[in-house]
Amino acid sequence: MESYTIEPIGRVESPLIDRGQAPRQGDEGAPEAWLVFEERVLEGLRDLREGDEVIVLTWLDRASRDVLSVHPRGDASRPRQGVFSTRSPDRPNPVGLHRVGVVAVEGARMRVRDLEALDGTPIVDVKPVLDRDTER
Amino acid sequence: MESYTIEPIGRVESPLIDRGQAPRQGDEGAPEAWLVFEERVLEGLRDLREGDEVIVLTWLDRASRDVLSVHPRGDASRPRQGVFSTRSPDRPNPVGLHRVGVVAVEGARMRVRDLEALDGTPIVDVKPVLDRDTER
Repeated sequence: MESYTIEPIGRVESPLIDRGQAPRQGDEGAPEAWLVFEERVLEGLRDLREGDEVIVLTWLDRASRDVLSVHPRGDASRPRQGVFSTRSPDRPNPVGLHRVGVVAVEGARMRVRDLEALDGTPIVDVKPVLDRDTER
Repeated sequence: MESYTIEPIGRVESPLIDRGQAPRQGDEGAPEAWLVFEERVLEGLRDLREGDEVIVLTWLDRASRDVLSVHPRGDASRPRQGVFSTRSPDRPNPVGLHRVGVVAVEGARMRVRDLEALDGTPIVDVKPVLDRDTER
């Protein structure tokens, strides 16, 4: 099957520097972080404002891509689960999904709260949160 | 900045064959569709069941990647908006995000409802819906 190329649009700047530090969920104590975008995508950001809730997609560049099942939360006493039923970073295409609140926008830099991504993580996309994501 | 390669894990089989037909949101009348996975990722699917709500990530392979602003809903009378404040398929890295309900699982094929992706769209990933996606 044909493959496709992701060209990151920016990087995360965060105090989280390794996977041992990263919380399992954004609201379990993830810090604030900066999204530092490339100048070439500035026009795409122009309607984002402080107070917005957005979904940030990242490329989890330190993940293992040859993993199809994991012990939930890394706990070896729990039975393995297929990765598509988990949010493990280890999976064939390690795209991270992060719902965050925008705290500030300064040109091509955006400060967000509750981002569980590691420092240096490439940013793939940013999307608004829609009702269809949350209501069913 | 370094680029990354997505190797699709499967494809969408849908009655939607062009963008003119596709509804803007999954719950505005999107049909049921099949997710047809590659046999190599079958182990990753083993805990998905009928009744699950999942997020399907796709690669919107018919999108334009050089677009940074769009008229909302394609309506030229509305002012342009930066793509990162919209769900337009046209954006630098056209990853689609679809919240769907699983209707049936048959080996490497999974039937889902309310999928707005076009026939043939490559599948990037499948993730469970978590509370943090919906509650804030």
